[in-house]
Amino acid sequence: MRHIISVIVENKFGVLARVSGLFSSRGYNIDSLTVGETNDPEVSRMTIVVKGDDSILDQVMKQLNKLVDVIEVVDLPREQSVRRELCLIKVNCNSGTRTEILEIANVFRAKTIHIGHTSLIIQITGTEEKINGFINLMEPFKILEVARTGVAAMQRESKEQ
Amino acid sequence: MRHIISVIVENKFGVLARVSGLFSSRGYNIDSLTVGETNDPEVSRMTIVVKGDDSILDQVMKQLNKLVDVIEVVDLPREQSVRRELCLIKVNCNSGTRTEILEIANVFRAKTIHIGHTSLIIQITGTEEKINGFINLMEPFKILEVARTGVAAMQRESKEQ
Repeated sequence: MRHIISVIVENKFGVLARVSGLFSSRGYNIDSLTVGETNDPEVSRMTIVVKGDDSILDQVMKQLNKLVDVIEVVDLPREQSVRRELCLIKVNCNSGTRTEILEIANVFRAKTIHIGHTSLIIQITGTEEKINGFINLMEPFKILEVARTGVAAMQRESKEQ
Repeated sequence: MRHIISVIVENKFGVLARVSGLFSSRGYNIDSLTVGETNDPEVSRMTIVVKGDDSILDQVMKQLNKLVDVIEVVDLPREQSVRRELCLIKVNCNSGTRTEILEIANVFRAKTIHIGHTSLIIQITGTEEKINGFINLMEPFKILEVARTGVAAMQRESKEQ
């Protein structure tokens, strides 16, 4: 099953390699991983999307909790959390296809952040499914580059409630 | 100096741990790392933001190029590339502060993606500087959680031009 794990860590040297190494040494492939500072510069938050056996994930989470630099590990329940991703897509275009591409982008509320003579860079945000759908629609125009951030997620209701 | 490195890799087991391990074993701290599939599901793209000595970075990039699963490594020039990040922020609110928070969010073209009784979740996208500015303005309202994706980046002009 697919899980979204939120890991709060001390913003220290090598933490990323230790956390990602723990997953791969247990045979867990990471589908996506995002990491960034929180409002406290000494604390970072990682969001990790993994697929695999639930009992092994349980072990991985226990081992994550034992790492010195790990402050908190939470398995985010799918129904109770929001998940968002950002994606930059560079698409080939010419005077004939530009309008068509921009119209599709508009429907997806995507933003054009660069227009060149023969290419466009479009920024789209949303769930993974929405981004997959947009990439799919761009395929016929010839995609030159795709850079996805991976998923950032959090629980809807505040922990303090 | 700060660098944004784009690494195209085969979407294989353990690549993330190997790449991030290479940076940390050379004493390089990763400021942000994003990874996601490209339009080819067998190929992933990582964007890594690092700070440190230029000559050491040169070595790290050479070593990255030697890894079997690494297809391409590019140091993206700051002036010629677009950089975007997504951030979810959960802020404490009450009937008195909600409007004020939503007004600030509006100025930043941020989207409110969840409204609870005592908290809001806001999604903001942009450069790191813009996101830092927004987080800063939210501080007085009491930030409950922050989840940043880290930076996705690509060169403005197409490689094929």
